[in-house]
Amino acid sequence: MVDVAIIGHGVVGSGVAEIILNHKDLLTEKAKNEINLKYILDIRDFENVPYADKFTKDFNDILNDDDVRVVIETAGGATFAYDYVKACLLKGKSVVTSNKELVAAKGAELLKIAMDNNINFLFEASVGGGIPVLRPIAQCLAANDLTEITGILNGTTNFILTKMIKDNMQFSDALSMAQRLGYAERDPSADIDGHDAARKICILASLAFGKHVYPDQIKTDGIRGMLLSDIALNSNMGYVTKLVGNAKVLGNGKITAAVSPAVIKKSDIISSTEDVFNIIKVRGDAIGDVAFYGRGAGKLPTASAVVADVLDCIKHLHARKYLFWDEGDKDYVVNPDTVAFSYLVITDAKNSDAVKSEFAVSDVCEENGNVAFTLKKTAKCDLKAKMEKLGINDYRIFRVID
Amino acid sequence: MVDVAIIGHGVVGSGVAEIILNHKDLLTEKAKNEINLKYILDIRDFENVPYADKFTKDFNDILNDDDVRVVIETAGGATFAYDYVKACLLKGKSVVTSNKELVAAKGAELLKIAMDNNINFLFEASVGGGIPVLRPIAQCLAANDLTEITGILNGTTNFILTKMIKDNMQFSDALSMAQRLGYAERDPSADIDGHDAARKICILASLAFGKHVYPDQIKTDGIRGMLLSDIALNSNMGYVTKLVGNAKVLGNGKITAAVSPAVIKKSDIISSTEDVFNIIKVRGDAIGDVAFYGRGAGKLPTASAVVADVLDCIKHLHARKYLFWDEGDKDYVVNPDTVAFSYLVITDAKNSDAVKSEFAVSDVCEENGNVAFTLKKTAKCDLKAKMEKLGINDYRIFRVID
Repeated sequence: MVDVAIIGHGVVGSGVAEIILNHKDLLTEKAKNEINLKYILDIRDFENVPYADKFTKDFNDILNDDDVRVVIETAGGATFAYDYVKACLLKGKSVVTSNKELVAAKGAELLKIAMDNNINFLFEASVGGGIPVLRPIAQCLAANDLTEITGILNGTTNFILTKMIKDNMQFSDALSMAQRLGYAERDPSADIDGHDAARKICILASLAFGKHVYPDQIKTDGIRGMLLSDIALNSNMGYVTKLVGNAKVLGNGKITAAVSPAVIKKSDIISSTEDVFNIIKVRGDAIGDVAFYGRGAGKLPTASAVVADVLDCIKHLHARKYLFWDEGDKDYVVNPDTVAFSYLVITDAKNSDAVKSEFAVSDVCEENGNVAFTLKKTAKCDLKAKMEKLGINDYRIFRVID
Repeated sequence: MVDVAIIGHGVVGSGVAEIILNHKDLLTEKAKNEINLKYILDIRDFENVPYADKFTKDFNDILNDDDVRVVIETAGGATFAYDYVKACLLKGKSVVTSNKELVAAKGAELLKIAMDNNINFLFEASVGGGIPVLRPIAQCLAANDLTEITGILNGTTNFILTKMIKDNMQFSDALSMAQRLGYAERDPSADIDGHDAARKICILASLAFGKHVYPDQIKTDGIRGMLLSDIALNSNMGYVTKLVGNAKVLGNGKITAAVSPAVIKKSDIISSTEDVFNIIKVRGDAIGDVAFYGRGAGKLPTASAVVADVLDCIKHLHARKYLFWDEGDKDYVVNPDTVAFSYLVITDAKNSDAVKSEFAVSDVCEENGNVAFTLKKTAKCDLKAKMEKLGINDYRIFRVID
């Protein structure tokens, strides 16, 4: 029997408790060992749950109980959670978390502590909710040099964009609907301004390319105020509009990474990822493109990924999983605005001739007083400088994903 | 240092040799151990490869060399390959294979031998080429009760259908093109009659549901002679036509499984899987739907999956991975024709009234003298009996995938 503890009894934490208690036989069979949920740490009182006897308000109950071999952190944030996780790892307890903020900020440091203590620090649920993606990258694609990761990493913004695309809803209406359905917070900025997706691309890039990428190294643009007319124009150009996280190896030991509004050919698998679904596409030298698709959030999908990590910890109490990356450095991530990519630009139709005179334009589409261009590969900072030179201030830029 | 041997120097075997020799540093770092390719078994002579000194024609060189801890079987088939793999496992050598025929026929038996000898028998590359799917099912989705698997499991037929759908090519022309491009064999029956996909759904169902499903338990219909007019009519009904493998838990300890032409809503992620790409969608009670997408075949994608398994064997020389399923039995798989599913039926337009009188029809579309119906859930055997009663002999049935 292995004792485990859960820190935090919110959406994910309560989902983990339910799965551990309700799937006891299945999990015991798979772990070849019985899982005993011994403590749940939460400052709140929960009297109406069948496992009310397991609650504690004192973290030391968990930390100082040597029988607790695996601690599940679902509290969120990178302050208390960081202290708790670090203390557990230093005490020789394996830790599983769904906390993307923590892993994006402190992953390398915590992985190093886990390695030094010959235990595991696993966080499959921190990216893509229940979608298996970190373990497949670390294990199944191990014979590849990975070169690029592209994904729809935030279900809330994908839901909003899907409502705009499919139902012609305005941004503000789609956002309200997402809030009403519980997909978006009352303060939706972490989602719609791209910060949530930025944390996830940090974790993916850190794992795939071996060196920590920190959230403040990710150029992040969201979809706040996205225009329905722009989405329609992108569609006329053959593209679907998405909020995309991307990280790419540049060679010479550097990468670039960004979260930005983007357009993708309608035939691409990423374009078919709708509503709250996420997708992560990984490019490797041998494998080509592979993609992982599913619900990127939600109580049970996320909790099931956490529990799968717990099973793995229990099966490897005395053996480390080779999940690891090094500390990063401030010159590792190149500003994507200085790297040549393909872009789609939308501006007032009156600027059409000026734009055509300045840029190598491949496709053009005009509609309702707006004009959209796709440009040959160019650095966004050059693009912006040229637009300024032309005296054009009102325009929107979409990265073209290939 | 760990010695390994490859059985077979065909497409996959030579790809594995190339990756092991060309990525030596990367692989050594990931395995925390040096991989030494010691033998390659093939009855043919290969003098113009840089590793010509490694060839042997005598399997006993490999079997009796106790330093060889991992054997990679890429010879294919279920006769010699079975003898070789079984002998290696019984000798305590871990085995990695890409051989779907072998795993579909003998997986349970070989997994049992591996378990009894505390070694590993891994075969990620046997399904979906380089797409990570078996390991994620076994590990990442371990906290789920899995209920259904649906996939495009054969790249050749998906290429043919994509050419028919996108370029209006006739079946025979698309097949010729696939043969010219090396995607289809001169005798294409294993692909176009669905047998290759059937082996893969056997392996997926065996792993996901825990009990061996044998190829002769899979009702298998292919796409030979698929009509372009049927594909167009399906499209008008809002569907994309695919060859789909499906396995589904029925409850009472039984499942059903089939390979058949099917139609899928255009917005479904499976519909966006084009050309030689494969996709496997897995449904679990906690996770909902997750999907794995990528190239289902090809030298380097497949070889990279094999090498990832080899790394896993080397990292677990003294610990078994929990990949396992039990022997099946003859009553385990229910004939899918007796299970109620949704179907789309196409027949001559002159039969329209008769069909409408007999069936609960939801959608109807008529074009060029043909009529397509979608039927409420019904067993295919009942459907066929009613069509016979109506005197209708010329009709095509497509399973509607939801």
